[in-house]
Amino acid sequence: MARKSLGIGLIGSGFIARCHVFGYRQMPVAFPAVAGIPRLEIVSDITMELAERAADQFGFARSTSDWKKVVSDPKVDIVDICVPSQLHREIALAAIAAGKIVYCEKPVGLSSAEAKDMALAAAKARIKSLVGFTYLRNPLMQLAREIVVDGTIGEVVSFAGLHNEDYMSDPAAPFSWRCDAGIAGKAGALGDLGCHIISIARMLAGEIAEVNCDLRTVYAHRKLADGTSRQVENEDEANALIRFQNGARGTIASSRIATGAKMRVGFDLIGTKGALRFDGERLGELQLYTRESNSGRVGFKTIYAAPGHLPGGVLLPGPAHGISFNDLKTIEIRDLMELATSDGSPGPDLADAARIGAIVDAMLESGATRKWVAPRIPTIE
Amino acid sequence: MARKSLGIGLIGSGFIARCHVFGYRQMPVAFPAVAGIPRLEIVSDITMELAERAADQFGFARSTSDWKKVVSDPKVDIVDICVPSQLHREIALAAIAAGKIVYCEKPVGLSSAEAKDMALAAAKARIKSLVGFTYLRNPLMQLAREIVVDGTIGEVVSFAGLHNEDYMSDPAAPFSWRCDAGIAGKAGALGDLGCHIISIARMLAGEIAEVNCDLRTVYAHRKLADGTSRQVENEDEANALIRFQNGARGTIASSRIATGAKMRVGFDLIGTKGALRFDGERLGELQLYTRESNSGRVGFKTIYAAPGHLPGGVLLPGPAHGISFNDLKTIEIRDLMELATSDGSPGPDLADAARIGAIVDAMLESGATRKWVAPRIPTIE
Amino acid sequence: MARKSLGIGLIGSGFIARCHVFGYRQMPVAFPAVAGIPRLEIVSDITMELAERAADQFGFARSTSDWKKVVSDPKVDIVDICVPSQLHREIALAAIAAGKIVYCEKPVGLSSAEAKDMALAAAKARIKSLVGFTYLRNPLMQLAREIVVDGTIGEVVSFAGLHNEDYMSDPAAPFSWRCDAGIAGKAGALGDLGCHIISIARMLAGEIAEVNCDLRTVYAHRKLADGTSRQVENEDEANALIRFQNGARGTIASSRIATGAKMRVGFDLIGTKGALRFDGERLGELQLYTRESNSGRVGFKTIYAAPGHLPGGVLLPGPAHGISFNDLKTIEIRDLMELATSDGSPGPDLADAARIGAIVDAMLESGATRKWVAPRIPTIE
Amino acid sequence: MARKSLGIGLIGSGFIARCHVFGYRQMPVAFPAVAGIPRLEIVSDITMELAERAADQFGFARSTSDWKKVVSDPKVDIVDICVPSQLHREIALAAIAAGKIVYCEKPVGLSSAEAKDMALAAAKARIKSLVGFTYLRNPLMQLAREIVVDGTIGEVVSFAGLHNEDYMSDPAAPFSWRCDAGIAGKAGALGDLGCHIISIARMLAGEIAEVNCDLRTVYAHRKLADGTSRQVENEDEANALIRFQNGARGTIASSRIATGAKMRVGFDLIGTKGALRFDGERLGELQLYTRESNSGRVGFKTIYAAPGHLPGGVLLPGPAHGISFNDLKTIEIRDLMELATSDGSPGPDLADAARIGAIVDAMLESGATRKWVAPRIPTIE
Repeated sequence: MARKSLGIGLIGSGFIARCHVFGYRQMPVAFPAVAGIPRLEIVSDITMELAERAADQFGFARSTSDWKKVVSDPKVDIVDICVPSQLHREIALAAIAAGKIVYCEKPVGLSSAEAKDMALAAAKARIKSLVGFTYLRNPLMQLAREIVVDGTIGEVVSFAGLHNEDYMSDPAAPFSWRCDAGIAGKAGALGDLGCHIISIARMLAGEIAEVNCDLRTVYAHRKLADGTSRQVENEDEANALIRFQNGARGTIASSRIATGAKMRVGFDLIGTKGALRFDGERLGELQLYTRESNSGRVGFKTIYAAPGHLPGGVLLPGPAHGISFNDLKTIEIRDLMELATSDGSPGPDLADAARIGAIVDAMLESGATRKWVAPRIPTIE
Repeated sequence: MARKSLGIGLIGSGFIARCHVFGYRQMPVAFPAVAGIPRLEIVSDITMELAERAADQFGFARSTSDWKKVVSDPKVDIVDICVPSQLHREIALAAIAAGKIVYCEKPVGLSSAEAKDMALAAAKARIKSLVGFTYLRNPLMQLAREIVVDGTIGEVVSFAGLHNEDYMSDPAAPFSWRCDAGIAGKAGALGDLGCHIISIARMLAGEIAEVNCDLRTVYAHRKLADGTSRQVENEDEANALIRFQNGARGTIASSRIATGAKMRVGFDLIGTKGALRFDGERLGELQLYTRESNSGRVGFKTIYAAPGHLPGGVLLPGPAHGISFNDLKTIEIRDLMELATSDGSPGPDLADAARIGAIVDAMLESGATRKWVAPRIPTIE
Repeated sequence: MARKSLGIGLIGSGFIARCHVFGYRQMPVAFPAVAGIPRLEIVSDITMELAERAADQFGFARSTSDWKKVVSDPKVDIVDICVPSQLHREIALAAIAAGKIVYCEKPVGLSSAEAKDMALAAAKARIKSLVGFTYLRNPLMQLAREIVVDGTIGEVVSFAGLHNEDYMSDPAAPFSWRCDAGIAGKAGALGDLGCHIISIARMLAGEIAEVNCDLRTVYAHRKLADGTSRQVENEDEANALIRFQNGARGTIASSRIATGAKMRVGFDLIGTKGALRFDGERLGELQLYTRESNSGRVGFKTIYAAPGHLPGGVLLPGPAHGISFNDLKTIEIRDLMELATSDGSPGPDLADAARIGAIVDAMLESGATRKWVAPRIPTIE
Repeated sequence: MARKSLGIGLIGSGFIARCHVFGYRQMPVAFPAVAGIPRLEIVSDITMELAERAADQFGFARSTSDWKKVVSDPKVDIVDICVPSQLHREIALAAIAAGKIVYCEKPVGLSSAEAKDMALAAAKARIKSLVGFTYLRNPLMQLAREIVVDGTIGEVVSFAGLHNEDYMSDPAAPFSWRCDAGIAGKAGALGDLGCHIISIARMLAGEIAEVNCDLRTVYAHRKLADGTSRQVENEDEANALIRFQNGARGTIASSRIATGAKMRVGFDLIGTKGALRFDGERLGELQLYTRESNSGRVGFKTIYAAPGHLPGGVLLPGPAHGISFNDLKTIEIRDLMELATSDGSPGPDLADAARIGAIVDAMLESGATRKWVAPRIPTIE
């Protein structure tokens, strides 16, 4: 099979861009049956020095300090946006105008309004898109969905989800761009972390109908490099009650100051006949419970990620051989290649990001008004 | 040391009464240094047959089918109330009038108003009381409190607690007295289970200032023995946002239909310098995290319950030798004996039960009004 | 049902005696359907002061400083031997001669020869006996046996067991009676701990045919109270290869210096169709794996101890409500009562103890000769 | 920094070769500070079709069906041997003769004699080598070594290790090349799996002085594709007692028929002051225990792999973000690049493989003679 080579134009070369590159490099080997493979065409960053270093380290053919050159490059099929949220809208709209596929990191834009603009533009121009809600790529998350859909655990009754980390838990941690609403967006923990667990909640329990959220900035000021301090402009933690459209209920919590939590993205999903539990710090394990006739032998079963959970792929060398965040990005790149070479969409796309953004907005509004808020889930086309 | 013998009058001989009896029988051996020991004087149940069988099995000297005889018995020092909530108020008021110490199971009364009546009467008559919030007796819960108080984990930032079980998770489970608001109270999962995690939250994170609760009865009707069905009168599950008086935030969840959850009373407590985690299904384990200078060696530590966690006691034969619900009741009886023989009060007493009831009431009210509600924490004396 | 009251004569009032007493006190309440109940008749210790204190704390009617009075007491039906191994033989032979049921702690006697003497005497006199291999009483161990016997996991292929603790792991820990071969026996870790995992191995995988053992005393001298040091006379740790009579293979390890191990009595049992795992530090959990047709959903299932695992008993108030070492002793007393009131024998008896002792002896011999040794399993009767 | 490009000649394109390729592709991005980077020059397999497909999928510039062309290729700096053991010796000797660096998968050669031949030839020719004992590359294994070396847990007292999997546990699993002593070597489970845990044991507890091993082939015959059955020529499982040169003791177990075990390579390492535990099915977690003055707060701490455990690398995006077998291979390729560009050797090399092979040989000999055997650890150079 001749695989279609798709030119990648990467904008940004920081932490998350590197994770994308790991995925680009693994994908062709890991998923030999997929029709497309990435070609690392050009990378940009804000200085030529950064861009050149990225090209060298990441293996891109060319580099530039002007992202517009990436967008307009005729050899670029896919524009990969790995910069802070403040630039998402402008870049994506340009990429859409240029007819490129858009691959964007979360949270998309500074607000759901920006995400909606992007999604509408993409819809109008019939441009495909994919957004980096990485945890959905976990084969165990796909197994969880399969278990929900096939009725193994009955109907979903409740979903209690969280995404806690502790990267800002030290009161002495310095002010970072993540604390700046003009760069990262008005949502803090919810924007960076909460959107992940919202994406999981929607995949497993359906669309969200109402939220009731409590949030706050525990450490209101943080130190700048010059020793002065600056006000933190978005929330450190949020707790929300959730009602799903299908009647299920639950909670979603998110914190960036949860001392001891490293990658605690997880959930308890309770069904009428069984239950699922997941904890991202044990990324390769899913817990499954089913009510059984022999009640003396019931219990949660620990299922380890295994090659069979990844149809068409050889990324996992064996069962319980570990799975890493970079592996999830490799699977995301597979989905990106499938998106680029077929009619189907693995999702989530920009429209989904706008919907998730609307849920985050509803949480922020609820936090301010202390009332239940129905997210204004946008209709895109 | 001559230990003071205290006459016990037990009212009710069902499931939880038996757990009390396990405690009565173990306590004198387990806590040789405590000044009082229980003497199993008289037990009552609604028929003589039940009462006699209980006296025989449990080792009580006498039995009766009239609880009033227990209350008025001159040899009874402590009235132990192990009947459904509908009878708590009447019995406790009679016991208080008779000058007896009151030891009552939770939830106390059909409502916080009833609990408050009882607490006020006890205060007026200067009667001591103890309420069966069993999980507080876990030596690891006392260790958790010590860790919070001594500053090991800094100040409490958030508390996410739950008490989930699945005893009503099967839609086909029959209507039980627990579904009858006239017997069990207007609170369902919150009354039976939620009050436990509220009691833990208050001990570790302080008094609760506001709640915002979502609750519902998922299985609105259940079958009676005669095949007809009856409406369930209290909630199957509840999720609440919590604000503590000291500024901490959090959530409390409770469900009796959480398929797969057996005794899932637990919490994540996050502090500014560390964190604690607990899961009641591993009753003998507490997880402790502290931020440390050598960041390459941080992690949650699994602390097993050990003899040293129980000063003055020899109930635990060794570290990690297991701890059971009955053991917690044995420790509760120790506290009861200390209450009866000293000036101090280990708590929680009827006044605390009224306070916890007020929090449950606020949750019910919030569930109905869909608004934040400040519990009307009663002032007793 | 009128339950038969059986007079208990307890010899020794230390640590393990107290655990027996917890069992005596719980059993009548926990197992209402069993035909016998214990009556705490008389307790002895080496001084009257100790004996009287024990009678007072434990609830025995009488006390004595002469164990022979216990054995000869006409009101005593069961002689309960809770003294160090050096006295087992003499006491048991006297009790057998007096026609009493013998209930003896492990390790039985200073050697398997002594245990065999006792077993032969009991057999000759048709005296019933029970030995305190406590972990066999765990309802999850009985479940494990049921799972093995009913073929759920196929035939047993291998058994890897251990019993590690760390009570002597500190090099500065003082010389104790457990280090004295004349009191505790010539086996150290194997005598105190290893015999437990041997008892489990035999129950689950059958009789042991051959052993090959490596053992040593890591801390050869320990300090006495007077500051001088004394040679430790038995091993600190042992590792053994095992061959079972039925063809299964495995290992048994035991250490009293395993830093960090508190009650680490556990095993991995591998069958042709499934597997079991157990760790005593999580006493209420059994892990079960079965090969299944849907290979994407296989995994070890965590089964919590539940009331249904204990037929005829109400000791466990609910599933996952914890189980403690004392609870195991309560179940052991149930077995003792059934032994005393029926024709069947729950085992293990003195003959089994002699067999286990023979296996320990073979391990010691193998350790000395560095060769495979076939235990001389005694034939009793 | 200009990084030195090193030409890779890969021989074999199966399962493990692919894992190498994952490593080759990630390494330059993951370890920007390392002086060398791999250049995928040529790949061979037994047919041109296989070789070409591998070149295409893996990203090699050229392909061949003759491994000798790989060895003699002037653009090849490193010969990477990913074929069954029967071909190791011939290929490695040719590569050494051609002056290439040798990177070989385990088990090296059909026997330790073959491995020794290769190691001696490499030593004589001053050729560098690296062998794929992948688990040693785990940053947590390096942390474990650091913890042992810096005295945190005192001196090593015992090491109980295992590597169990279940890929041959189904009696109906077909005869594979792994069962053929002429292809895979005379060691079965020990050759494929046991060598890994031996490599870990040596790194953490030192060289092995004596072994005493019990082994067997449980399923003596397995079905061929044509329906006939063939005798399995090496062991399914092995259990060994171990004595280390420094006085520590322990056990090593290995099985390929351990139903339910997926990647159960792990150990309990006990020191005089602390302990370590590891289980490869939770590849990103190390458990550390240290005896502490506050005995009420001791316990095993779960340390998750974190960026700080990997100096100079950015492979891990964050703490507890997962780690996979492929990640270990990426770290192995880093070590290969460092080997190729510096004077130091990260090890293990062919000489180490010969030493590990000698230990496996001693186990096989012990299994046959039923006696303790001192491995004839070869002196190379």
